[in-house]
Amino acid sequence: MEVAKSISEVRDIVKAARGRGGKVGFVPTMGALHAGHVSLIRRSVEDGCFTVVSIFVNPTQFGAGEDFEKYPRPLDADLKICEDKKVDLVFVPAAGELYGKETLTWVNVEKLTAGLCGRFRPGHFRGVATVCAKLFNIVQPDVAYFGQKDAQQAVVIKKMVAELNMPLEISICPTVRETDGLAVSSRNQYLEPAQRKDAACLYSALQKCRQSAKSGMRDTQQLIAEMRKIIEAVPTVKQIDYIEIVDTHSLQPLEKIIDKALVALAVKIGTTRLIDNVIVSAGSG
Amino acid sequence: MEVAKSISEVRDIVKAARGRGGKVGFVPTMGALHAGHVSLIRRSVEDGCFTVVSIFVNPTQFGAGEDFEKYPRPLDADLKICEDKKVDLVFVPAAGELYGKETLTWVNVEKLTAGLCGRFRPGHFRGVATVCAKLFNIVQPDVAYFGQKDAQQAVVIKKMVAELNMPLEISICPTVRETDGLAVSSRNQYLEPAQRKDAACLYSALQKCRQSAKSGMRDTQQLIAEMRKIIEAVPTVKQIDYIEIVDTHSLQPLEKIIDKALVALAVKIGTTRLIDNVIVSAGSG
Repeated sequence: MEVAKSISEVRDIVKAARGRGGKVGFVPTMGALHAGHVSLIRRSVEDGCFTVVSIFVNPTQFGAGEDFEKYPRPLDADLKICEDKKVDLVFVPAAGELYGKETLTWVNVEKLTAGLCGRFRPGHFRGVATVCAKLFNIVQPDVAYFGQKDAQQAVVIKKMVAELNMPLEISICPTVRETDGLAVSSRNQYLEPAQRKDAACLYSALQKCRQSAKSGMRDTQQLIAEMRKIIEAVPTVKQIDYIEIVDTHSLQPLEKIIDKALVALAVKIGTTRLIDNVIVSAGSG
Repeated sequence: MEVAKSISEVRDIVKAARGRGGKVGFVPTMGALHAGHVSLIRRSVEDGCFTVVSIFVNPTQFGAGEDFEKYPRPLDADLKICEDKKVDLVFVPAAGELYGKETLTWVNVEKLTAGLCGRFRPGHFRGVATVCAKLFNIVQPDVAYFGQKDAQQAVVIKKMVAELNMPLEISICPTVRETDGLAVSSRNQYLEPAQRKDAACLYSALQKCRQSAKSGMRDTQQLIAEMRKIIEAVPTVKQIDYIEIVDTHSLQPLEKIIDKALVALAVKIGTTRLIDNVIVSAGSG
């Protein structure tokens, strides 16, 4: 496994790999690697790709008062995971390698970034889209792998790639969950034991929604009310940012679930903001 | 010479060319090819590149009330010029190939697009940056060639490429001029004979500025006043959008010319908006 700190090293190594034939797979991360990231890496390796992982806590996707400073950065452990999982190249950009003193160029994906997390994290998806555009241009992969857990991010990145005609494929992989259903996340480590136990309520609420929809409940206000009730009953829940049922492509709120829908939520447990989602299908009742 | 209408054709042809070795050079145009475009094509061919020209009147860089509809589209003549000048591939996107019904993804280059033409053409550089990002991702050239005549565009595209780490080089080529100094432009054909004669005043003013600066005049207000006087004296000049002296990198207005400066102007002759610029150096007097 190679570790590169500069853009030119990455380009040289990827170019050499491409010269030997075969596809390049890319897993962009902010480090603090967990089973979710590992599932993306595994997919890339199984697809036969020369597999590149980037580890970079991207400042432009954090808002004022968010957790940029305290975001975990366990680099040695991350590199060991990459080595174990047969990653070929890890890009750990040196300070100043990705952003200069001032950033003037931004990729904006309108509408899709206005709701859901975008409403609570202004500028977040601008930062995500911009850093992904940069990383895609540096690594030049054939495929980039993202998790379904960040559902809005997945839709935004797919739209950006399609509309800017970026020459790569975006592969969205299933959310990896703990035994109690909690979606694996680097931020779960912020949770105290009682909070960690309570955090399972996010997935319980989503499962309830899936069951109700399958049983024929199509009215999204009714479905949301059921989920809200489950989550509000949990002691350490401090705030529900949103619980929404939206179209899987446009991310616009739905009144009724006709075919399938994205059910997404963001909840603060103590000071930790967690997100989760499922895609549900309407049943016949 | 090959002519491609679809993105996939372009990718296949460029990939095959790259497989035979050698660099790919790209000249993005809106057609109505003239000596300025030809100078860019010639540079690419002389650089030994497999040379790709795109011909596409990009709707997103035109504002309401601008000349999108009447912009000249002499496709047959353009293709003949490309053939004569040894272009390898012309990309003439079919309708709907570059933009869908709705565009959500935009590349914005802040600050650099606020002044000069950006002040009079809101959204223009957003359209230019976005279509260039798209075309660069489709053609994937090693070098793209632009003219110095569109000075602000050149600075904006260079900044976008640098900040988004796009894997290509931007080559800026000198402005091509008619015998009387008028910068060659597709829009010159809008000029009636008297207007065409008067249009030489833009370059006369710029030349005056160059001489005065060389003679030691450093105060930009004084230099601008001299230019304004020359242009305002011309009968068919309808409106001066701006005459500015700015830093060549930041495009911010300068009070004095210390080293070198970009002198840029936009003037309406009749209903035709013309732009021009020169880079001047301060002399010792």
